[in-house]
Amino acid sequence: MKRIAIIDIGSNSIRLVLVQINKNNFFSVIDELKETVRLGKDMTIYGGLNPLRIEQAIKTLSFFKCLCEAQNVTEIIAVATEAVRKASNQVEFINRVRSELGIEIRVLTGTLEAYYDYFGNVNSMDISNALLIDIGGSSTELIWVEDRNLKASISMPFGAINLTERFSLYKAMDEKTEKDLKEFIISLYKDIPWLKEIKNIPLVGIGGTIRNIAKISRKKNSYPIANLHNYRTTVEDVIEIYNMSKIKDYTERKKIKGLSKDRADIFLGAAGAVITLFEFLDLKELYVSGCGLREGIIYEYILQGNTPLEDVLGFSISNHIFNYEMNSNHAYQVWKLTECLYNDLKSILNIDKDCCKILKTAALLHDCGVRISYYDHHSHSFYIIANSKINGLSHREQLMAAYIAALHRKNDFKIDLDKYEKIINEEDIKVIEKLAILIRICENLDGGVNSNVSGVSCDIEAGTVIISVKSKTDPILEINQALNCAASFEKIFGKKLNIKSSYF
Amino acid sequence: MKRIAIIDIGSNSIRLVLVQINKNNFFSVIDELKETVRLGKDMTIYGGLNPLRIEQAIKTLSFFKCLCEAQNVTEIIAVATEAVRKASNQVEFINRVRSELGIEIRVLTGTLEAYYDYFGNVNSMDISNALLIDIGGSSTELIWVEDRNLKASISMPFGAINLTERFSLYKAMDEKTEKDLKEFIISLYKDIPWLKEIKNIPLVGIGGTIRNIAKISRKKNSYPIANLHNYRTTVEDVIEIYNMSKIKDYTERKKIKGLSKDRADIFLGAAGAVITLFEFLDLKELYVSGCGLREGIIYEYILQGNTPLEDVLGFSISNHIFNYEMNSNHAYQVWKLTECLYNDLKSILNIDKDCCKILKTAALLHDCGVRISYYDHHSHSFYIIANSKINGLSHREQLMAAYIAALHRKNDFKIDLDKYEKIINEEDIKVIEKLAILIRICENLDGGVNSNVSGVSCDIEAGTVIISVKSKTDPILEINQALNCAASFEKIFGKKLNIKSSYF
Repeated sequence: MKRIAIIDIGSNSIRLVLVQINKNNFFSVIDELKETVRLGKDMTIYGGLNPLRIEQAIKTLSFFKCLCEAQNVTEIIAVATEAVRKASNQVEFINRVRSELGIEIRVLTGTLEAYYDYFGNVNSMDISNALLIDIGGSSTELIWVEDRNLKASISMPFGAINLTERFSLYKAMDEKTEKDLKEFIISLYKDIPWLKEIKNIPLVGIGGTIRNIAKISRKKNSYPIANLHNYRTTVEDVIEIYNMSKIKDYTERKKIKGLSKDRADIFLGAAGAVITLFEFLDLKELYVSGCGLREGIIYEYILQGNTPLEDVLGFSISNHIFNYEMNSNHAYQVWKLTECLYNDLKSILNIDKDCCKILKTAALLHDCGVRISYYDHHSHSFYIIANSKINGLSHREQLMAAYIAALHRKNDFKIDLDKYEKIINEEDIKVIEKLAILIRICENLDGGVNSNVSGVSCDIEAGTVIISVKSKTDPILEINQALNCAASFEKIFGKKLNIKSSYF
Repeated sequence: MKRIAIIDIGSNSIRLVLVQINKNNFFSVIDELKETVRLGKDMTIYGGLNPLRIEQAIKTLSFFKCLCEAQNVTEIIAVATEAVRKASNQVEFINRVRSELGIEIRVLTGTLEAYYDYFGNVNSMDISNALLIDIGGSSTELIWVEDRNLKASISMPFGAINLTERFSLYKAMDEKTEKDLKEFIISLYKDIPWLKEIKNIPLVGIGGTIRNIAKISRKKNSYPIANLHNYRTTVEDVIEIYNMSKIKDYTERKKIKGLSKDRADIFLGAAGAVITLFEFLDLKELYVSGCGLREGIIYEYILQGNTPLEDVLGFSISNHIFNYEMNSNHAYQVWKLTECLYNDLKSILNIDKDCCKILKTAALLHDCGVRISYYDHHSHSFYIIANSKINGLSHREQLMAAYIAALHRKNDFKIDLDKYEKIINEEDIKVIEKLAILIRICENLDGGVNSNVSGVSCDIEAGTVIISVKSKTDPILEINQALNCAASFEKIFGKKLNIKSSYF
């Protein structure tokens, strides 16, 4: 176990992320801090960082260093982006931080910044093909991902802060200003040769502007899940948010529900850049990502190289199993048995879509609620699965997995369908109930948590399903416990459940 | 760290609880299993345990033993109550369990059973004076608690199973049967000399019948908290549940929402005994306890004796801080500073009641949500505090603490007041907002989690509150972070917030 810190010296804010790294590269974020220092603002006429803002940056970094020491951090990785990258007094700033604080800042090129955005996302989202956009304070990266590879990328020298300064966007936007803003941005997009080749892929958005668009959208649509990672919305929704914002000045914008007060001043230009990209490429969907540069650095560190994870969901689940200190033997045993039932019973399950990812998540994490308390742990499992950052699942898949896990002990957990109607429907509930009964049977078949039952296979007869159980010792009590599911099984599938043992 | 198992061989069910015991006596339940063996049923004409039920008990205990081995349990404490206590073949049964399974069963006297009920509850509820009732399968214990001492107790040889058998309570109850049942129970109550002295104290209920009454009541009243421990209701509510049940036969009773199917047959007699006690002593309130015999044994084990905890809430919180692996230095530092503000600012806080317990819980557990995920951890803290078994708080206090913790980072967490209207009201919300701002200030004053700020004191002036900060090194960044609360502070208290340092 070790703890590292990532310090991200951006043009708008300086951020600290403390990461605990455990065996097998499992990790968890244990603290995060942000100071809105705005190094990219009020730069001197010679293109240097403003001395007052340098002082504030030094104080912030000093505080972050104290926090790292208090938290037993053994390694600090500090990177800086556009504001420092272009600053004429870059070297003085870096030297001062080194001599006063002993922190070595690595100034990233635009290409490397884009690469980390790519690497953070390819390891945390279920995307093969996408266009990523990361709008920062003073730069914006576009990254084209094809078959999970980085096909092309660019870093452009505009962001939320310098667009605001250049087009005076503290006040409401008039038609002329909007036209100028869009023309400026389009002229930059037009200069990117590969950009016009992009068609019909989702736009994945990274950074504070995107997160704020998502927060406004979530409030506007009464969306019931707090997790922003993997939030999805349409171009129409984003345009509506932009149109609603552009007619407000800074003070009025501060009242927009979901928009952070310390971003209300610099929101408009960056939102305009997103809209312009949507229109320029005729894209339809925005996927919000909670991962970017900092996660890219974390994954590079733990994977020790640039080969992405092969199985994003599998790693994410294993990471949660480790971090939640679950009994992984039992978890994998229940999943192994459940997968057999799922495959053998396909004809009576009668489910259109492949639910393997959902079922795997539910089977492996069904007991995670014990982390809160053994009592009512099935309900706690629902809460944790629904509210965790599970990479590689959509919110719908995640919610379905949560509900399945909540039903792993008995039927009496009821989801508030009114609350979640935007995400799952009555049909999904039927699928959930079918899948939950499979896990409940297998959870009972490993009731001794000793993998006594090592395998199952099914025979489907006219009125009965027979599960044959292989075991090391007499599995009579496991079978008895599993047979408590027989009434529910019959209600759902219209067939009796019989479980027999080949053990003598 | 070690793991022990408690096996409770009751007249209705055999239960297993696995407990992990950590340093400083902190502990957590890691697994629980129940088999409804009903040793107290179908006893032979010679008063012996039924051979078929003995076989089932042996199989269950064998399975429990496997589970203990799989879970690295190093000590099994097995106790038996009324069914085994009175069985003519007690010795054969105990010898067989010893020789076949190596498990030593301790048969508890009625007095000892009552004592464990007392000891489980005095360490887990905020009660000084109460009458406890524990209705089991074949016996019922009454325990009089005065000033946290066990003043008197009795174990009576009736319970859910033998009342059902004696009065044939599988069918609906006619007037004659009800009269006979009540007369039988009253005749026993009348024989207890100390019982008539009891007046105006709450009845604390223990055991499956009580839990089922609570579950039915919770459904009936759409109560929003799942945790049964500390659930409270009125005598009228319990009578209504009893009256609704007594006109139904076994099959109809199984449909009652909240009543477990495997208790529907034996529910009526035991519920009648509760009602009769309420009427006999003219008591008004039922407090439901989730703790009894098994918890009594656990507390005796960890406390190594019979002296109860002095501070039930304090121990419970410390236990959660340990089990949730929180940074206890930071937690206690935030509480220390918050307590100073709370005392210094009493005149402007203007809160009627002493909220010390609520504030302490919120301050100490404010970060517990990190256990689920650092992201949105304030919301997770709400969930965990609202849904944990925190001993020594009422549900209302617990919910208020949860909400305060949820506001420790920013104002934007909104509780669903419609959902919780039965527990807290608009006035409570105002108190919550006042207390939350104190914690938020202090959380920021320990932003470096290094206890740099070691003390605070307040001066209240006409338009301003000045917090003076003592610290080891320059606290400028902690103060800056804390001053982010100034706007909220002014909105709530109508005074500006100023924070100054005595550090030079």
